[in-house]
Amino acid sequence: MNLRIPGPTPLPEAVRIAAGGDAFDHRGERFEQLLRQCEARLKQFYQTESDVLVLTGSGTGGLEAALVNVLSPGQAVLAVSVGHFGERFAAVARAFGGQVTMLESEPGQALDARRVEAALARLPEPAVLLTTHNETSTGVLNDLEAVSQMLPGPGPRRPLWLVDGVSSLGATDLPMDRWGCDVVVSASQKAWMAPAGLAFLGVSERAWEWIDRARCPRYYWDLREARKYARKGQTPFTPAVNALAGLDAALELMVQEGLETIVQRHRDLARQTRAGLRALGFAMLASDQDASPTVTAARVPVGLSATEIKKRLLRDYGVAVAAGMGDLKEQIIRVAHMGYCSEENISQLLAALKGLLPHLRNQRN
Amino acid sequence: MNLRIPGPTPLPEAVRIAAGGDAFDHRGERFEQLLRQCEARLKQFYQTESDVLVLTGSGTGGLEAALVNVLSPGQAVLAVSVGHFGERFAAVARAFGGQVTMLESEPGQALDARRVEAALARLPEPAVLLTTHNETSTGVLNDLEAVSQMLPGPGPRRPLWLVDGVSSLGATDLPMDRWGCDVVVSASQKAWMAPAGLAFLGVSERAWEWIDRARCPRYYWDLREARKYARKGQTPFTPAVNALAGLDAALELMVQEGLETIVQRHRDLARQTRAGLRALGFAMLASDQDASPTVTAARVPVGLSATEIKKRLLRDYGVAVAAGMGDLKEQIIRVAHMGYCSEENISQLLAALKGLLPHLRNQRN
Repeated sequence: MNLRIPGPTPLPEAVRIAAGGDAFDHRGERFEQLLRQCEARLKQFYQTESDVLVLTGSGTGGLEAALVNVLSPGQAVLAVSVGHFGERFAAVARAFGGQVTMLESEPGQALDARRVEAALARLPEPAVLLTTHNETSTGVLNDLEAVSQMLPGPGPRRPLWLVDGVSSLGATDLPMDRWGCDVVVSASQKAWMAPAGLAFLGVSERAWEWIDRARCPRYYWDLREARKYARKGQTPFTPAVNALAGLDAALELMVQEGLETIVQRHRDLARQTRAGLRALGFAMLASDQDASPTVTAARVPVGLSATEIKKRLLRDYGVAVAAGMGDLKEQIIRVAHMGYCSEENISQLLAALKGLLPHLRNQRN
Repeated sequence: MNLRIPGPTPLPEAVRIAAGGDAFDHRGERFEQLLRQCEARLKQFYQTESDVLVLTGSGTGGLEAALVNVLSPGQAVLAVSVGHFGERFAAVARAFGGQVTMLESEPGQALDARRVEAALARLPEPAVLLTTHNETSTGVLNDLEAVSQMLPGPGPRRPLWLVDGVSSLGATDLPMDRWGCDVVVSASQKAWMAPAGLAFLGVSERAWEWIDRARCPRYYWDLREARKYARKGQTPFTPAVNALAGLDAALELMVQEGLETIVQRHRDLARQTRAGLRALGFAMLASDQDASPTVTAARVPVGLSATEIKKRLLRDYGVAVAAGMGDLKEQIIRVAHMGYCSEENISQLLAALKGLLPHLRNQRN
């Protein structure tokens, strides 16, 4: 199986062996060492001096954790959305009482930092700013460095900045401290090459002030408890211990490869995928400048169906890709090159497509 | 390692192999088959015709999911607590705006159904009733059949009954439909012999009416979404796919053994553990009648420390047990015989204790 969906991503053998070990005591020494090592390494990839906390849940659980810890009823929220997962971030904020203003883009387009600046200026302060770093529904990487440069300096006019880094962190450059992000969420089953079930939250000093004041109800996701336990090498509730053992093995591989090499590998894979798909008659949804390094969204050639391509690639070639989400369902395929992915994996996918397309075209005739 | 803590519990080899496989598409056919088979088998052990939903999170996440889906601000809640996890269930209800009345017992004592009946009669209707089936902090199994018999029949006087079955279901008889429970929560890393990271919720028809009316904010834990996706063999968000593969292998073993045999095995293991510990000078915290079939809490002999016993059992004999929680920390050890546990596992623990105790006594002199 060549698993090229945007998560869960393939697990390297060392990760599968670690995740397939026996259970162990989450109040014991082995767990403490494992958690401390994972948190220290996550901090390297987050490029932060702040806490990075590990919670048991999926990426959306992580987004909810970020929001319920900083929101109070009626809080002004600017949700910058460039696709499905941007909308989801906004929907969670709305569910928990945020007064959400949406700032949207056309499918395949990245955010425009100047529009974000203008929209923020119209919101009452203090506002919460939501941005998606990498939008997997459209294959777009937002330029968060540009956002960081237009944000007001320290003071009440500066919004609290929450970043959905679920499908970017671990594969791209997201220097949390340098860019001044306040809460950055990621999840184990994406670029981290680890079993699904763990969410990560990097939390800035400024965010902790908000967390202490926020009036949104919370218990399972309470970051104050998570921090208290993390300091003694534990989690408040029984964590997904097998997934954590897998994450530790994956982080070992990532540290060996090094962030810079990982980032370059993902850029190269995106370039290879885009060139190959273009040669087969697909049109890229995102421009080369806005293209995601972890997932490519491509419009299928006229007359073909994305779900049919997906189905036949799986059945006839053992390659799993994703179709579009929502209105784009039949129009695009999405190919992930996220985490454990090599040039060969992409070449095999392209060869499979090259073999398949004539058959699908013949069926139509 | 002889892992005798009350979760995470040991994983059979077939479960470890399944959980250590590669990741797979949570929107694909394999996942759909897996989820449907797991849900059907969970329903067998829940003894219910109602939905049993699978969420990604720990047991406490499952308790929160149960509460946020039925509570509205100011809702009257009767929390029947016989220990640490009963207090936690109440604390979650309080965090989400429940008006909680506590009904507590002395450590090691089970609930008294007549006291529950009397306390319920004093609450405004409609009330939510919280009970723990098996309390791992004190090794007590509550008699929920007695509770079911004293509850008012259909109508507004009947409370909505939420049951924490985290450490009982899959090892004990908990016929959800026959007893009339409304939401029953369990978790993969307990009697189910599966990797940590999944919570299960059995949800009655009556509970769905409450869920539609409840005004507590929710998103990640929203059971309406979980049910909608379950009907197409999916989950709303990326689930812990490797843990689910492990759960499927564990349920296969459980179906082969059969509920009745499993229940009897746990009763026998509890009897063996209690007799063996008594012979070594430990006093049982719970009476034989109230004793849990999945975890035994025993007062350590005078002059000995529970945390020291725990530490030395692990270091010198490779046996992991738990000490007490809260005020009981130094006074009791807790031995789990939950899920994947044999007579030999308990004999080895007892032999280890028999070897260790004279050393600890000599150190004291």
